[in-house]
Amino acid sequence: MTKEQLYKIHFLPSGREVEIKGGESLIKAARAAGIHINASCGGAGVCGKCRVIMAEGEVAGGRSDKLTEEEYQAGYRQACIATISGHATVTVPEISGLKKGGLSTAVPIRHRASMHRFDIQDLREAGIFVPPVVKLFLELPTPSNLDNMADAGRIILGLSNQYDERRIITSLPILRKIRKTLREDNFRVTVTLARPVNSKTKTHLINIQPGNWTARNFGLAFDIGTTTVYGLLLDLNSGKVLARQGDYNGQLSYGEDVISRIIHAEQPEGLAQMQELVVKSINFIIDRLLESAKPPEGKKKGKIKRDEISSITLAGNTTMTHLLMGLEPDNIRRAPYVPVTTFVPPLRAADLNIKLPDHTVALLYPSISSYVGGDIVAGVMGSGMYRTDKVTLYVDIGTNAEIVIGNRDWLACAACSAGPAFEGGGITHGMRAADGAIEDFSLNPATLEPMNITIGNLQPVGICGSGLLVIVATLFENNVIDQSGKFNRQLATQRIRPGRSGHEYVLAWKAESGTNSDIVINEVDIDNFIRAKAAIYAGVKTLVEVVGLAIGDLEQIILAGAFGSYIDLDSAMTIGLLPEVAADKVLYVGNGSLLGSWMSELSNHIRQDVVDVVHRMTSFELSEVPDFKDQYIASLFLPHTDISLFPETGKRLVARQISAPP
Amino acid sequence: MTKEQLYKIHFLPSGREVEIKGGESLIKAARAAGIHINASCGGAGVCGKCRVIMAEGEVAGGRSDKLTEEEYQAGYRQACIATISGHATVTVPEISGLKKGGLSTAVPIRHRASMHRFDIQDLREAGIFVPPVVKLFLELPTPSNLDNMADAGRIILGLSNQYDERRIITSLPILRKIRKTLREDNFRVTVTLARPVNSKTKTHLINIQPGNWTARNFGLAFDIGTTTVYGLLLDLNSGKVLARQGDYNGQLSYGEDVISRIIHAEQPEGLAQMQELVVKSINFIIDRLLESAKPPEGKKKGKIKRDEISSITLAGNTTMTHLLMGLEPDNIRRAPYVPVTTFVPPLRAADLNIKLPDHTVALLYPSISSYVGGDIVAGVMGSGMYRTDKVTLYVDIGTNAEIVIGNRDWLACAACSAGPAFEGGGITHGMRAADGAIEDFSLNPATLEPMNITIGNLQPVGICGSGLLVIVATLFENNVIDQSGKFNRQLATQRIRPGRSGHEYVLAWKAESGTNSDIVINEVDIDNFIRAKAAIYAGVKTLVEVVGLAIGDLEQIILAGAFGSYIDLDSAMTIGLLPEVAADKVLYVGNGSLLGSWMSELSNHIRQDVVDVVHRMTSFELSEVPDFKDQYIASLFLPHTDISLFPETGKRLVARQISAPP
Repeated sequence: MTKEQLYKIHFLPSGREVEIKGGESLIKAARAAGIHINASCGGAGVCGKCRVIMAEGEVAGGRSDKLTEEEYQAGYRQACIATISGHATVTVPEISGLKKGGLSTAVPIRHRASMHRFDIQDLREAGIFVPPVVKLFLELPTPSNLDNMADAGRIILGLSNQYDERRIITSLPILRKIRKTLREDNFRVTVTLARPVNSKTKTHLINIQPGNWTARNFGLAFDIGTTTVYGLLLDLNSGKVLARQGDYNGQLSYGEDVISRIIHAEQPEGLAQMQELVVKSINFIIDRLLESAKPPEGKKKGKIKRDEISSITLAGNTTMTHLLMGLEPDNIRRAPYVPVTTFVPPLRAADLNIKLPDHTVALLYPSISSYVGGDIVAGVMGSGMYRTDKVTLYVDIGTNAEIVIGNRDWLACAACSAGPAFEGGGITHGMRAADGAIEDFSLNPATLEPMNITIGNLQPVGICGSGLLVIVATLFENNVIDQSGKFNRQLATQRIRPGRSGHEYVLAWKAESGTNSDIVINEVDIDNFIRAKAAIYAGVKTLVEVVGLAIGDLEQIILAGAFGSYIDLDSAMTIGLLPEVAADKVLYVGNGSLLGSWMSELSNHIRQDVVDVVHRMTSFELSEVPDFKDQYIASLFLPHTDISLFPETGKRLVARQISAPP
Repeated sequence: MTKEQLYKIHFLPSGREVEIKGGESLIKAARAAGIHINASCGGAGVCGKCRVIMAEGEVAGGRSDKLTEEEYQAGYRQACIATISGHATVTVPEISGLKKGGLSTAVPIRHRASMHRFDIQDLREAGIFVPPVVKLFLELPTPSNLDNMADAGRIILGLSNQYDERRIITSLPILRKIRKTLREDNFRVTVTLARPVNSKTKTHLINIQPGNWTARNFGLAFDIGTTTVYGLLLDLNSGKVLARQGDYNGQLSYGEDVISRIIHAEQPEGLAQMQELVVKSINFIIDRLLESAKPPEGKKKGKIKRDEISSITLAGNTTMTHLLMGLEPDNIRRAPYVPVTTFVPPLRAADLNIKLPDHTVALLYPSISSYVGGDIVAGVMGSGMYRTDKVTLYVDIGTNAEIVIGNRDWLACAACSAGPAFEGGGITHGMRAADGAIEDFSLNPATLEPMNITIGNLQPVGICGSGLLVIVATLFENNVIDQSGKFNRQLATQRIRPGRSGHEYVLAWKAESGTNSDIVINEVDIDNFIRAKAAIYAGVKTLVEVVGLAIGDLEQIILAGAFGSYIDLDSAMTIGLLPEVAADKVLYVGNGSLLGSWMSELSNHIRQDVVDVVHRMTSFELSEVPDFKDQYIASLFLPHTDISLFPETGKRLVARQISAPP
């Protein structure tokens, strides 16, 4: 048995099989088979989330202290540190794998609060519903001895005469097809124009079709998230959403956070691989958007064809944007955190290997800095924050929290690293918001018995970010944990017990759980959670103060992002994640990044505003603000060391302390 | 012997061999072997210029009335109508093949008159020596915690701070290499900027190199002629010409004039083939320019590398420009003669398959119409005609003659089809200006014996255009032919004799010639020549009158083009090809097209002026001017029916008639 030998690895339940050299890691075999295995730590063997079960055969290694002896004996292995040593059959548990087939909706559907959304009506009312890429119909005079102007000049003159469109430029591929196209329907043609951001520069004539096809002009809006990719198919005439689709970002098997992706991109071929993976996800979504879209009605009806897509707008964080463009992200993770670029010129989608026709324009949202990306800029645009008079706080909470404060007159932003707690990282039974995750929770104050609500109403398998927030707030409100997050050891319940990581509370016994073990939350988990919320609150407070305001000056809070969209507001204020404001001052925008892409795909005016917003947004590096560290330490308490910042919670706290048992 | 069988055809003197199917034409076999055979008529079998000699084996056919029985017996065959029927060895005579290895100079060297040329000194004096593509050196601050601007933004800010360069845009390939390049020499970089024609639009950042390479910035200027292609390698810092090279246009084996080329381009794959052939010629010349250029001296010395070429400017007639770009030229030859485009956006040279690095910009001269092309616009620019106060006539004479009249305030142009007489076409012993061509001629007035001066001082093999002009003028001045071009049958010389095409004059007897036959000029030749000169003179007169002037208002004549550069001025006025003006009012610019490319390669200001010139140039379709036909008929006389237009020639004519024998 030499390492050079090839072995067959069979994966269950998918039934896929690959042949791979001995000595390669099992996770690499899974990738080769197109199977995603959750590897939060990027394959370093420390998160223990990539566990699989040996059904037949054996692998070498595959065990760290993340696996108990019992689990190891039961056949569990950590795929990222297991190496191939023979033919084998491996079961990938649902909890490790990603549900294949994509996410079905672009905006979270299990949302509890009212959703604010810009929509096409807003654009119409503002008179700015004019997409960056439009189709215009021209009926041109046929050439004669007295008018033998060139074909291209005839079109340009027609655009000027009929639509007052000037400063047109075109390209070689269009010039190569102009002659035949003009003559196919007797000089009646539809031209596609891509407008510039700056009205002084040129408008690009990007396509020409015989006859009148103005009724069929379609666009795409994409959010390229670190975890998920979402896309909308839009009718650029009506502004209507014709289809929405989502899927996990194909880069996910190389780690859950941007740092793991950057590290991989630094490997030989790594950047090309990362680029390919995200484009594969985009292409998969485009295929499904085209399949699922209802064909438009009217004179020019019928299924939407790929070459009827004129433009695609994409927004993502700075790392995602770099990887999509194939730009080296290396310095994003190294002080002083210098990205390659923040602005992106209009590109050809095909140059990014996006499976769209040669003429399709790709418009990428600009970033502000390495950690305030195009997704946040898009959120600022899509939420309308940059057009309001109110002093607004925009927060997008994920592994990193990005904060923007300002209004129509000024804007300031900062990023703070909250750590992965809100996405289930660093939490013993933390997990992403997937089937079986505890997403809501309540407590019987008398018995201290829990009620878990899980996604899909399944047996609980873990805790997702929004569940964690509610659990901590509820435990706190019921005096089960104190202001520093420690369990009240005097409570008469079996649910609280000492554990390896301080005391813990059993959310679900082994028998009730979907994992064949107790689901718990322990003091280390709570501590991690408090650090995460403290980082965000301290970031908000520091940024507010650095611009000369106080928390009380905030007139509006906009919540965005995967976590921000699911957040329970009372809980968030109770534990001091968000400043305490009246509930009616809080707006949820859901996927702000997608919303912004969508809006600027429909409005060149908004696209022009983006440039303006990026130029006047002041970016602060929190680590460079002397006060930030103190703010952070002061926030490592539920809700905060300065209770006067949370008057309502403070009142309840006082009442509780009076009524609490000694 | 079936037609499907393959036969070996061996070509002498090159020694090349091809295998080709039976039934294919011999000229196709030659093309497949990479051997050019002169085929003026485009392969129709009517010009008889593609003659080759069978050395071994035989072909089928290959004979029209262009070959005498004697020639046929000697092994002569017409390659375009001969088909392969077995293995064969074929000698391609020098007179049929094109001298391989290219033409050695960019501007004709056998020029008789003073040459007018714009030069770098003119540009410097006018303060417009600023090339469209420049290199600038940036010393940028290194990033720090307090200045962590993106790499691309840092460059853009540096350009603004150090050079006041604004409105910069770049592309994906540059963004992909920016990070590494900046750090290779500690944020000291050289950027290459391509300036826009219109200062309001964007400047493109097309390349970035580590360190200071501003001293090495090179450009190319090309004339893409129907017959020949010429190129210059320029130092964009000093403006110096570092090398000049020329070669025949590789399309030549598909016919000598633009119409043959268009016809071929209309065949399946024909356009791609034509594009490929001209690009092959360009690439061949670039190779030789790089090989032959003297390496620059100074700090940054060494051989010029291909990737140091920042830009290439090309000018050609409308058909050549279409074929180079791969645009369908079909309508150029069909009324109402509509080209695909007259303006050409800046292109990437690599997109035309020109073997230059990806960043090299290709700037193509715009045309005016189907028959007034970029070569003429370039000539107007290069000659400085558009900047003069004098009413100027610019004439480029070839198969088509293009005429421009005007000055700094106004410009009008027209094309007239002169036919191929000036390039040796339609003339029994006509040939291109190549070795053995009679290019000058004189006559002993007493004996009527000729003295032929040939190119290369070889035995005469034919008559080139400039020779023809002198011959006709000399025969006319000596009363050997009359005003209608007919021979004086009373003259006592053996040199004049009846022939198949009217009377003829024997320029060289078989024994003195290099072709083993008499070289003659006959009445049909002279008639063809008179028609050609009449078309041009009528064109000039019509255009002058259509703008409200008279011939006498012309203050300056600029002669350009292959024929225009060699023209004997006295002869041209004697026979009524050009208006009679004082010799010091005539300027020769040589290859006006190359000159214009060269000038705008060195001056973005001139490139901007081009747009202006094209917009204000009024183009006239002579066939649409009612007077033109009458003008033409009136010009079918030596020098003209209205002798008052040629007072000097008129005087000599009267004197001669008085002294002439009855």
